[in-house]
Amino acid sequence: MIQDGMKVATSGFTPSGYPKAVPMALVERVRRTGESLKIDIFTGASTGDELDELLAVHGLIARRFPYQTSNALRKGINAGEVMYADMHLSHAPQFVDYGFWGEIDLAVIEAAAITEEGHLVPTTSVGISPTFVKHARKVIVEINLSQPLEMEGIHDIFIPENPPMRRPIQILRVFDRIGRPYIEIAPEKIAGIVITDIPDGVKDFAPVKETHRRIARNLIDFFEKEVSQGRMGKSLGPLQSGVGSVANAVLSGLLDSDFENLVMYTEVIQDAVLDLIDSGKVTFASGCSLTPSPKGVKRLYRDFSRYKEKILLRPQEISNHPEVIRRLGVISMNTAIEVDIFGNVNSTHQMGSHIMNGIGGSGDFTRNSALSIFTTESIAKSGNISCVVPMVSHCDHTEHDVDIIVTEQGLADLRGLAPVERARRIIENCAHPDYRQKLWDYLDKGLKEGGGHTPIHLEQALSWHQRFIREGHM
Amino acid sequence: MIQDGMKVATSGFTPSGYPKAVPMALVERVRRTGESLKIDIFTGASTGDELDELLAVHGLIARRFPYQTSNALRKGINAGEVMYADMHLSHAPQFVDYGFWGEIDLAVIEAAAITEEGHLVPTTSVGISPTFVKHARKVIVEINLSQPLEMEGIHDIFIPENPPMRRPIQILRVFDRIGRPYIEIAPEKIAGIVITDIPDGVKDFAPVKETHRRIARNLIDFFEKEVSQGRMGKSLGPLQSGVGSVANAVLSGLLDSDFENLVMYTEVIQDAVLDLIDSGKVTFASGCSLTPSPKGVKRLYRDFSRYKEKILLRPQEISNHPEVIRRLGVISMNTAIEVDIFGNVNSTHQMGSHIMNGIGGSGDFTRNSALSIFTTESIAKSGNISCVVPMVSHCDHTEHDVDIIVTEQGLADLRGLAPVERARRIIENCAHPDYRQKLWDYLDKGLKEGGGHTPIHLEQALSWHQRFIREGHM
Repeated sequence: MIQDGMKVATSGFTPSGYPKAVPMALVERVRRTGESLKIDIFTGASTGDELDELLAVHGLIARRFPYQTSNALRKGINAGEVMYADMHLSHAPQFVDYGFWGEIDLAVIEAAAITEEGHLVPTTSVGISPTFVKHARKVIVEINLSQPLEMEGIHDIFIPENPPMRRPIQILRVFDRIGRPYIEIAPEKIAGIVITDIPDGVKDFAPVKETHRRIARNLIDFFEKEVSQGRMGKSLGPLQSGVGSVANAVLSGLLDSDFENLVMYTEVIQDAVLDLIDSGKVTFASGCSLTPSPKGVKRLYRDFSRYKEKILLRPQEISNHPEVIRRLGVISMNTAIEVDIFGNVNSTHQMGSHIMNGIGGSGDFTRNSALSIFTTESIAKSGNISCVVPMVSHCDHTEHDVDIIVTEQGLADLRGLAPVERARRIIENCAHPDYRQKLWDYLDKGLKEGGGHTPIHLEQALSWHQRFIREGHM
Repeated sequence: MIQDGMKVATSGFTPSGYPKAVPMALVERVRRTGESLKIDIFTGASTGDELDELLAVHGLIARRFPYQTSNALRKGINAGEVMYADMHLSHAPQFVDYGFWGEIDLAVIEAAAITEEGHLVPTTSVGISPTFVKHARKVIVEINLSQPLEMEGIHDIFIPENPPMRRPIQILRVFDRIGRPYIEIAPEKIAGIVITDIPDGVKDFAPVKETHRRIARNLIDFFEKEVSQGRMGKSLGPLQSGVGSVANAVLSGLLDSDFENLVMYTEVIQDAVLDLIDSGKVTFASGCSLTPSPKGVKRLYRDFSRYKEKILLRPQEISNHPEVIRRLGVISMNTAIEVDIFGNVNSTHQMGSHIMNGIGGSGDFTRNSALSIFTTESIAKSGNISCVVPMVSHCDHTEHDVDIIVTEQGLADLRGLAPVERARRIIENCAHPDYRQKLWDYLDKGLKEGGGHTPIHLEQALSWHQRFIREGHM
């Protein structure tokens, strides 16, 4: 059913809920036949090794949308062998619905079960599966026996109509349900059913570093100040948190805080959220995927029906929807690769050219949140890279979209500041002491020689990145 | 009532509906007393000469939010004398509501009338006036007798509650009304009423150039193709259009098109919209301000009650609201100062450092629209500047937010393309022939020496801007 040149869409968001047996069988087939095959792969976000990594290693991916985190795929993208469009995750389902991506030939969807009426119960993520199923010509269902049948009921599946028929999304609180617990599918669309029991390829977190703990502390101090000054309530706003070690550390930091009755309106639910639920700090978490560590998965599955009362999974069009994020007053917390002194953020490219992963949902949340926070360590590569630079080498979040920057050095509250004021605050509060004077020198040079509202110095703006490539340090 | 160091908020959005007599009197007072006075000025967007220009000329502005277009003010900002935060216009009211800007000492609001119940009927713009009136300690009302009393009824005033009480904004069609035709105010807040008859300082448009007509033609050809391929209906989506001569030309181009029953969900309503209404092409236009040319004002006022049936003015929090823009499937059309070959857009800064105006509402619409379009002429300054550059010198709209770029040379449809593919299409279709080969050379150099997903060449990325500053041409 999979032929050269096809557009194939799959379930999956993080290494959770993606099909495993079908891509493995495809690679096996290509190996056996020696045929030349390249397909376009559309997913919710990143997936696991059995899909992205395996297909990329064997050179089977022509185009890839809208996000990835695979080593082999990253290599192929940066070598110009895979065409990759790195998109806002809430926009991707709409691209399918609007026909901007053309027709989807086949969808491969992991399911925990098929209901008696013939509908699909998704597994650990929802991603774009409902929209893919709606539009794909044919669907292969991968029933994964490693996923508990108790999965049924944790999902809330809703696809907005296209304009002009689109109506308000009636989520007023993070736990509101607006859809059905399954993905509707016309039985004649099902081209095949595959049974497997390969578990999600979730991974352990890197151990929490002292710098991560200090980032968390700085952020929590800031929240406490906001509460004491009446700009936030004791339960803050619904929280969104990006993925990875820093994000996990920040959430863990909330465990020891005084905040109460927290809720989350986020994308990916990881171990720290389970901890926060267990401790009673978080009363409900709405997300798009469950991506705990291997240990976290065991804990989750052992006690699934209890967690199911506090967790809900939505399609990414809804978990990341501007309408809901803005309405709820979400506080967004995402990680940056580098920030510049004027408050622009690079979250995707190393040295401006080589992509790491992609923007993912960070733009969806940042742009529509009540408060947009970015965290980063102040230095990387043993201090050879300053994560605070004169000018970002790639811009994913503009100065207009960034309220707060936090490093282990401190926090810069940029609200209401002009660019020069932002620069002073970011250098003073966030930059590493080893790079602080050099940043002051750059700003002075910009003020003296360039001038203007945003006094960049065109010749030196990207010189730190050039030096790193030339000499191995900034 | 106005003292040194105060935070003063005013009505006004474009040179429409801003207070005139009060700022003039303030300047007169300062002139007379010789006192030293600097205040922070918060408005809806830009205003007219009697406010921004006059206060800036006399050095009375310390801080300015969230947008401006005044020559004197621009000069002060670029000289580092005025602290300016250039913000998304839909975010500004929320900043007041959330207390991020601190307390507003005084609001000065132009009104066409005070209702029998004591409420304010705004004039040619709504801006942030409702929220300013709600939060300011005191309010001065400037009744402007040059504004027709028929103004009453054209406005739809609605302030969203703050989270967690915020509910869906019930605008499902561009003409839906959700509020009241006046701004509610507690009578004890009114500190003074000033009567004036100074008209809005609206200006003539620059004459439509042939290049503008070609931009419009290229865009309309594209719309026709989208309709023929079923990705849009005959009435397109609700249109948003930025301000200025190119925007006006694009809208005028629709007059001779085959599209029908068009509607607008936009910010600023200018002459071309009146033409489209008169011709029957546009059946309804929702905006935040009426800013026709002096001739257009006469035409509008002569026939106000007829236009009032087809036009509605909302607060900028609603006209630019992500929720409504996304729901309605708005097609956004905004102008760029420069674009780069990877699809990033600069709409604010000249040569990266000197601000022109600000991002205004372009980000609100772009980011949440169904289709995000940017227009620019391919060259500026008699060809000494290429508006298609290797890297934008300032980024306001990232590669993730830009679907279509149009110049008089042609149109680049960037949907679903990887950065290298975007570069090829933008150079081929949009760049001016005089700069095309140089852009190909830059891309080749990036591919050979830099490589990666986005093959920038760090040393040469900003070299075109450097050359312009050094030699007066790119």
